[in-house]
Amino acid sequence: MPKSKHPESCPLSRRMARVAPSAIMEILKAVAAADVISFASGLPDPELYPTRDLRAITDEILTTDGRAALQYGPAEGVPALREWVAGRLRQRGLDVSPEGVLITHGSQQALDLAARAFLDPGDRVLLESPSYLAAIQTFDSYEAEYETLPVDGDGLDPADLRDRLRGAAPPKLLFILPNFQNPTGVTLAADRRQAVAAAAAAAGVPLLEDDAYHDLRYDGEPLPPVAALARNPWAIYTGTFSKTIVPGIRVGYAAGNPAVIARLAQLKQITDLHSSSLGQRIALRFCQEGHLEPQIARLCAAYRERRDAMLSALSTHVAGLATWTRPRGGMFLLLTLPDGIDTAPLLPAAMKAGVAFVPGGTFFPRGGGDHTLRLNFVSATPAQIETGVRLLAGVIRKAVG
Amino acid sequence: MPKSKHPESCPLSRRMARVAPSAIMEILKAVAAADVISFASGLPDPELYPTRDLRAITDEILTTDGRAALQYGPAEGVPALREWVAGRLRQRGLDVSPEGVLITHGSQQALDLAARAFLDPGDRVLLESPSYLAAIQTFDSYEAEYETLPVDGDGLDPADLRDRLRGAAPPKLLFILPNFQNPTGVTLAADRRQAVAAAAAAAGVPLLEDDAYHDLRYDGEPLPPVAALARNPWAIYTGTFSKTIVPGIRVGYAAGNPAVIARLAQLKQITDLHSSSLGQRIALRFCQEGHLEPQIARLCAAYRERRDAMLSALSTHVAGLATWTRPRGGMFLLLTLPDGIDTAPLLPAAMKAGVAFVPGGTFFPRGGGDHTLRLNFVSATPAQIETGVRLLAGVIRKAVG
Repeated sequence: MPKSKHPESCPLSRRMARVAPSAIMEILKAVAAADVISFASGLPDPELYPTRDLRAITDEILTTDGRAALQYGPAEGVPALREWVAGRLRQRGLDVSPEGVLITHGSQQALDLAARAFLDPGDRVLLESPSYLAAIQTFDSYEAEYETLPVDGDGLDPADLRDRLRGAAPPKLLFILPNFQNPTGVTLAADRRQAVAAAAAAAGVPLLEDDAYHDLRYDGEPLPPVAALARNPWAIYTGTFSKTIVPGIRVGYAAGNPAVIARLAQLKQITDLHSSSLGQRIALRFCQEGHLEPQIARLCAAYRERRDAMLSALSTHVAGLATWTRPRGGMFLLLTLPDGIDTAPLLPAAMKAGVAFVPGGTFFPRGGGDHTLRLNFVSATPAQIETGVRLLAGVIRKAVG
Repeated sequence: MPKSKHPESCPLSRRMARVAPSAIMEILKAVAAADVISFASGLPDPELYPTRDLRAITDEILTTDGRAALQYGPAEGVPALREWVAGRLRQRGLDVSPEGVLITHGSQQALDLAARAFLDPGDRVLLESPSYLAAIQTFDSYEAEYETLPVDGDGLDPADLRDRLRGAAPPKLLFILPNFQNPTGVTLAADRRQAVAAAAAAAGVPLLEDDAYHDLRYDGEPLPPVAALARNPWAIYTGTFSKTIVPGIRVGYAAGNPAVIARLAQLKQITDLHSSSLGQRIALRFCQEGHLEPQIARLCAAYRERRDAMLSALSTHVAGLATWTRPRGGMFLLLTLPDGIDTAPLLPAAMKAGVAFVPGGTFFPRGGGDHTLRLNFVSATPAQIETGVRLLAGVIRKAVG
């Protein structure tokens, strides 16, 4: 640094004190460089990507609609895609019009824009514990504080929620992941959804519902979004094409009341003007040409088999050493070791044995999950899963002793 | 709204009071719907887009590298693209390594991330008046205050800058657009650049330099970036492929000290994880295969002719009614009418006459430019430009009359 008249030597904004390298990213870099079976990543399996269809679609777009696909576009998104998403969400039970949809660069951006629209420094966010790490990091950057709702096999407990909302100063935002939550894979039970929706609406607390994994359901019938179950004018529901088409085109969305979405679109414009014109058109045409449902069916068949392989391998190798969640969809499950066994120090031993996971502590906004670990069950083949879980069991057995 | 226990009925964050619909966007929507010659937009001419090359390149990427192009990627960007950009910027005189480059969704996102990294509410930004509207809007959203530097035909005056930096509490950020500035088209003179760089560095004030139009130069030799002329460890230099390749793929960048860029990358990750894997690869391959220089030459030839057509039409039709800037590059020039003539109320009459512009007041962060208007000279053909300027002159003549 040159000599400075500034009182402080670092001119970064105060919020940057809450923005840190992601522990998970460091782990993923180490894992990627190692030759191990990785249950650590958050990646879908690229072997299952509809690359050939996407290639044909992209070529068609650039042949017939190249200028629009390469030009600037509206901040809100391509109108036909907003309309398609609105129709899709109405099938899920949400009362959404095309004007109530904002296309974003993945659902991460939808979460970030919602946080930016709602959170002042010191505002409290009420969220599940554990919860989605990248959302917590976003809330951190807006200098939020946390109140947490423990999660059991049926999700958060509405009685806990009502307790938290009862005070004179309710939290500013309720953030939930009702379907196959990252990192637990847990689904909020049908009978709890209505109670959660009603409690948030009655308290006038904006609901931020991330449903990124909605279509990756392997058992049972789809459940209605919480945002569909009570009139909450500030509710924002987020989703993505990253898990059903591909992540590399960065197409997701936020949906809600058109007046609220219009405010988010103003933020979107100053953030990056608009989402990729080409990426949006690729997603749209993929859906319009009928590729989405077969692709979802293909993914669900493959991922269901892998989930089953992991549950079966856990029963075989880990029973008695730990407990685990049994996801009905999504990509992850959470393993819980006996209290007092910190999983972070186990990772180097596991990687030496040939398998990787993510220590769970980082997913718990107020601590308490150091004895848990997250396993991705969709990235490896069933045979790799069997081997990986066996190797992991060896490491756990040594630690549990 | 349902009955609420909240003290306020609106739960939006305080910053949202500073986030409003863009006046320009409303104008552009009205203009797009009308049958007029538009000098209002900020759009490059899609007739000049290298659509065929981009189609071939995209097909090649999806054939040979489809999985990576459709998968998640690193927050910092595709390594080969970071390396390419670093090499390009070194040619401009900047001392940049690949680790000092962050790939963003357009340069707008680079500006937004920089503002997010530096600005706390109430922080003062020192910037040119007029300046780039979407940057002002971004700073607004971080609740910044402004100090302004008037711009003459050679850009800002370094003596003014030194005055502003002299106080006990210098501003938090210096934001400049040295090349063909939007909205004036003015270029910061060579002899002023060194003085500007030295003044900011001596005061320890971070420099944010937006050079989106660098390659669109129609006369004279390229000038070195201000960030290259003094050691300013917090300097951030932003650029984009939107003006040289196409905007629809949303690929831009921020460059600077690797330690500072690493902090911006942490913000990028929580903002939208990473930039489009496909878009980044399209830009990279376009550059690697040697398409960039011919495309820039093609754009410059066409845009130079249009700029000349507009300057010539202004001389013919507007001389004596107004003054105007004479850009050596970029896409815009600024017309100044006699003091007291507000250009905003002239727009409806102009559109009725068949021509559109953007009233200039909105580009002046602290006011004072109501008698100016911005003209885009690259979107229309030379013949349309001649007609449009003639129509505009009629409207101005009536107002000045």
